[in-house]
Amino acid sequence: MPHIDRRIGFMGSGQMAEALAKGLINRGVVTPNQICCTDPVQARKDLFRSFGASSYDTTLEVVHNADVLFVAVKPQYVGAVLTEARPHLTPRHVVVSIAAGITVDMLLDAAGPEAHVVRVMPNTPCLVGETAAAMCVGGKATPEDAELVSTLFSAVGRIYQLDEKLLAAVTGLSGSGPAFVFLMIEALADGGVRAGLPRDVAQALAAQTVLGSAKMVLETGKHPGALKDMVTSPGGTTIAGVHELEMGGVRAAFMSAVVAATNRANELSRMG
Amino acid sequence: MPHIDRRIGFMGSGQMAEALAKGLINRGVVTPNQICCTDPVQARKDLFRSFGASSYDTTLEVVHNADVLFVAVKPQYVGAVLTEARPHLTPRHVVVSIAAGITVDMLLDAAGPEAHVVRVMPNTPCLVGETAAAMCVGGKATPEDAELVSTLFSAVGRIYQLDEKLLAAVTGLSGSGPAFVFLMIEALADGGVRAGLPRDVAQALAAQTVLGSAKMVLETGKHPGALKDMVTSPGGTTIAGVHELEMGGVRAAFMSAVVAATNRANELSRMG
Repeated sequence: MPHIDRRIGFMGSGQMAEALAKGLINRGVVTPNQICCTDPVQARKDLFRSFGASSYDTTLEVVHNADVLFVAVKPQYVGAVLTEARPHLTPRHVVVSIAAGITVDMLLDAAGPEAHVVRVMPNTPCLVGETAAAMCVGGKATPEDAELVSTLFSAVGRIYQLDEKLLAAVTGLSGSGPAFVFLMIEALADGGVRAGLPRDVAQALAAQTVLGSAKMVLETGKHPGALKDMVTSPGGTTIAGVHELEMGGVRAAFMSAVVAATNRANELSRMG
Repeated sequence: MPHIDRRIGFMGSGQMAEALAKGLINRGVVTPNQICCTDPVQARKDLFRSFGASSYDTTLEVVHNADVLFVAVKPQYVGAVLTEARPHLTPRHVVVSIAAGITVDMLLDAAGPEAHVVRVMPNTPCLVGETAAAMCVGGKATPEDAELVSTLFSAVGRIYQLDEKLLAAVTGLSGSGPAFVFLMIEALADGGVRAGLPRDVAQALAAQTVLGSAKMVLETGKHPGALKDMVTSPGGTTIAGVHELEMGGVRAAFMSAVVAATNRANELSRMG
């Protein structure tokens, strides 16, 4: 990972902010003294100080002491935080919002049309350094700003730059997807228990199998269908299981899940 | 990873053998000169030599030059290989079979009742260092033998020691499971494409989401159901998708898949 010489400020220091800050430090992208934060909860500020970051009592102090401003408060507070920051934003500031459903237009309304704005849709595996995220830019944000944000998130997973109109689909796929995967891991473990395995072994084998299989897709670059074919011997155990999944209409159910979550994301953005 | 001072021999040098050998070297468990192999295909022997292992033309040379003997040939050749090795096996040898469906009794029939036999059911993510495996011991195998094999496989993932009667369920869960996960990744990506994402982005986000979510289960130690609840906001996008999965009976389908694969594994062992 390249070292970045910008100062990183977190406006809101919840779990995603913590995951990002720790990821950036652990991967050597920044040193702890390049990070500052604020949060209404003292314990969150103490936690950031515990790994060497500084903390401030006000949003404005973060604005004055950082170049990249992560807006990591709950969606309903984004407008207020950015309105407060607005008179103090300079061209050096990059405003990065990870608030679900808050569009670039909403961000620019609050932060001003001159703001360099980047909207990111991360997901919770950010907490273990394996997020699947997407981003789009707005206002005066430059390709360099986009590159910078891309580098920062690459410390905690993977990120893709897309048109904003696709961010609802990203919310439906990778934003909501972890819940779908958790449900499936639980079901695989239940299947193992049904077949006689102790619960702890079944759950560990299920989660590890899911992890390893996904890593196979990412590292081999092979199509998941081709990888499935490679492990499916004629008349063997695997094709017997695949048959059950197909009879159960599992593919259609996962497609429906992504589409339903995407539709709901679009509805929520319109209501915002 | 602890360094192991045994010599490791591969009788059969296919993909799983390669993954194991490279994993052991990469994790510092053994040095390349502790590894030897044989294989009917010269290219496989050349490949092992390319990373510093030695290769031999015969099974017997491997037996004489190694302490841990990985039987990594196709199941139908296990009997012949072990029968050839049998007169040369000594108490220092640990025979480790990764052949699907070949029971401990079959291994002891071929290798002799005095053999230290360990049967392992790994899965293909062994190739990317993330196998979910199980093992059982037989014959004169000692707890130290089991510990040794456990250490070796821990270099390429996770392994659990179980009663042999549970190995069919392991085959159904982690042995066949990668295909179930590949199918699901493809379906999640299809859902993303249905929602408007380009195929390459959809597939990468899907696979990365699956990887990160599984890592969340393994690293947090939290129940997958609890993790699902943590990312499921009231009236939000995620619960909309979860609803589709439940209406589709996805949990039952995954349980059925594991059970069907387990049943088939039991059938195949009886036929063997």
